[in-house]
Amino acid sequence: MNGKRLTRLCTLLQAGRLDALALTPGPSLKYLTGLHFHLMERPILALFTAEGRAAIVLPDLEKSSLTDIPLEVFSYSETPAEWSEAFRRAVRSLGLSGKCVGVEPRAMRLLEFRYLEQAASAAAFPDASAIIAELRLCKEAEEIAAMRRAVAIAQAALWSTLPLVRPGVSERDLAAELLTQLLRHGSQPTLPFAPIVSAGPNAANPHAAPSDRPLQPGDLLVIDWGASADGYISDLTRTFAIGAPGKEEVCMYEAVRAAGDAARAVLQPGVTCAQVDRVARQVIEQAGYGRYFVHRTGHGIGLEAHEPPYLHAENSQALEVGMTFTIEPGVYLPGRNGVRIEDNLVVTEEGAECLSDWPRSLQVIG
Amino acid sequence: MNGKRLTRLCTLLQAGRLDALALTPGPSLKYLTGLHFHLMERPILALFTAEGRAAIVLPDLEKSSLTDIPLEVFSYSETPAEWSEAFRRAVRSLGLSGKCVGVEPRAMRLLEFRYLEQAASAAAFPDASAIIAELRLCKEAEEIAAMRRAVAIAQAALWSTLPLVRPGVSERDLAAELLTQLLRHGSQPTLPFAPIVSAGPNAANPHAAPSDRPLQPGDLLVIDWGASADGYISDLTRTFAIGAPGKEEVCMYEAVRAAGDAARAVLQPGVTCAQVDRVARQVIEQAGYGRYFVHRTGHGIGLEAHEPPYLHAENSQALEVGMTFTIEPGVYLPGRNGVRIEDNLVVTEEGAECLSDWPRSLQVIG
Repeated sequence: MNGKRLTRLCTLLQAGRLDALALTPGPSLKYLTGLHFHLMERPILALFTAEGRAAIVLPDLEKSSLTDIPLEVFSYSETPAEWSEAFRRAVRSLGLSGKCVGVEPRAMRLLEFRYLEQAASAAAFPDASAIIAELRLCKEAEEIAAMRRAVAIAQAALWSTLPLVRPGVSERDLAAELLTQLLRHGSQPTLPFAPIVSAGPNAANPHAAPSDRPLQPGDLLVIDWGASADGYISDLTRTFAIGAPGKEEVCMYEAVRAAGDAARAVLQPGVTCAQVDRVARQVIEQAGYGRYFVHRTGHGIGLEAHEPPYLHAENSQALEVGMTFTIEPGVYLPGRNGVRIEDNLVVTEEGAECLSDWPRSLQVIG
Repeated sequence: MNGKRLTRLCTLLQAGRLDALALTPGPSLKYLTGLHFHLMERPILALFTAEGRAAIVLPDLEKSSLTDIPLEVFSYSETPAEWSEAFRRAVRSLGLSGKCVGVEPRAMRLLEFRYLEQAASAAAFPDASAIIAELRLCKEAEEIAAMRRAVAIAQAALWSTLPLVRPGVSERDLAAELLTQLLRHGSQPTLPFAPIVSAGPNAANPHAAPSDRPLQPGDLLVIDWGASADGYISDLTRTFAIGAPGKEEVCMYEAVRAAGDAARAVLQPGVTCAQVDRVARQVIEQAGYGRYFVHRTGHGIGLEAHEPPYLHAENSQALEVGMTFTIEPGVYLPGRNGVRIEDNLVVTEEGAECLSDWPRSLQVIG
């Protein structure tokens, strides 16, 4: 349990007029308690009251993970008929019936929610995402240190993979080698996401899955990859040219690079997420690729690969010292090629620090 | 899209008096459509009506994954304010207001559910888990072939890891090597679960995380690992003795092995899951370890590492040809040692076939 964070949660719950917070296992629970469970068919739910009490409902066979954690434990056996009773006992003990219990919709499963709803009659379950975001938004020094390690592991893994990059090798083989290198270089086994290795037409899909297509001269090769260190992640992208790039490819690349440079230059406390997005977008629009920049400029990173703050046109949230996020403009020409360049940044008093130092100029291979 | 499976879904929905099924991305959606999305902060939901219509709500930037898939598409931009409107358009197009729309609570997030609930006013959202289970329960030949490949990859990976097993090596280092070998031997990058490598006292926790503790003579070493092939998984466990095992360790091991043998011997169509669990449990009880067998005898496997059928004392479901599951009795002595032996089986006309062929006798190392 992290006493300081739990105290802060209590303050935020009280300010938000919530009586409690309900969390399924995941990053937020890990942030508060250090606890992690792999969710499968058995429901697991932790409850935190605004007065500082904490309880967890979980299977008997997970109890041994709880050593030294001061939580009231309501466990159940392998007989599903017992499960609702465990939820009822937890809710009764914390007095949550009729209360206001915040939830995290993007993390909570309907499985746990329905058990909770059934147990806490007449309770309300408002969205507590904003409170959770505020809790986790500004990173502590040790969190940034972990992210720095995750960036270093990712960069080392790609350096070790590069010798394999050449015309003829498949996206899938490159992705497998990169994965192996991420683990060899010390990433935790649960990677933040499966690396994207996409070239030529496949690179025009921002979320492409690696295919069996061999790399060809003229391809742009997009590699979007990251590592995990002590629960924190990195999320980087670089685009390479396979053989001498065409004129269009160079224009796309330079527009994306300039957009990233421009966005990074305006980062400082008080600037809004929308402003950062606008600056990047304008550069790409001026280069004539506006309609091919189909996603926002960046997203927060930390315990999750995507978390607040989101850098899009409608987000008026102001940057604060300690916020960590990606800047990742991209241009995608359907059926042809794609470019994305992504770095990880942390807001400082003076501006922002980039955690990644991989060259941002176009590297030509083969 | 898999036409045969979609037709079967329609029949099951009609028989279950459901007007439609709502699915978030995951194994069930992949089973029906082949589609896979990594869920993050943007909601994605597919809807299937009992009359055979299908629709999906998703971000604009995921649309390119849908090539050639006959789905009505309701996409939205990066502006979260648009998201509810996309759900409303989908619900209106399929006419789901006031209807009975089944959901899958163990897979669906509250995020998607709340958008759906808001869009489909006066609709009911009953648990459709039983229908989904029935749909996916009996595996087709090609599914079993994929699971066979996943077992072969897992076994080859452990053979390649074994030379590293000796006193002094840490659980964490063994787990990292096993992971690397799983990928080298051809597992898909998204493993079914992070391998469990636990020895001595840590092996007494069925869901232990690999620690930095070095293996010691007298330890039992539990390795629970699996691979993915074409979306299907394997899930195996073997227990090794580090140095000459003590008398207690041999007794535990032989009880667990005999329990597995006994359970496997009764498998055939018509036998219930509860009967299989009882047979295994009786053997362990007779050996005096009943209270240390803290979990059920097995669980279904396929697209997921845990899925129906669950082999526990209360499950009266009868086995059918094509069902695939683990048999994995275990004995866990808190603070001391643990044993688990797990194989993957498929029910046949005559009994059952074991997909794994790793020796089941106690292997002593070092």
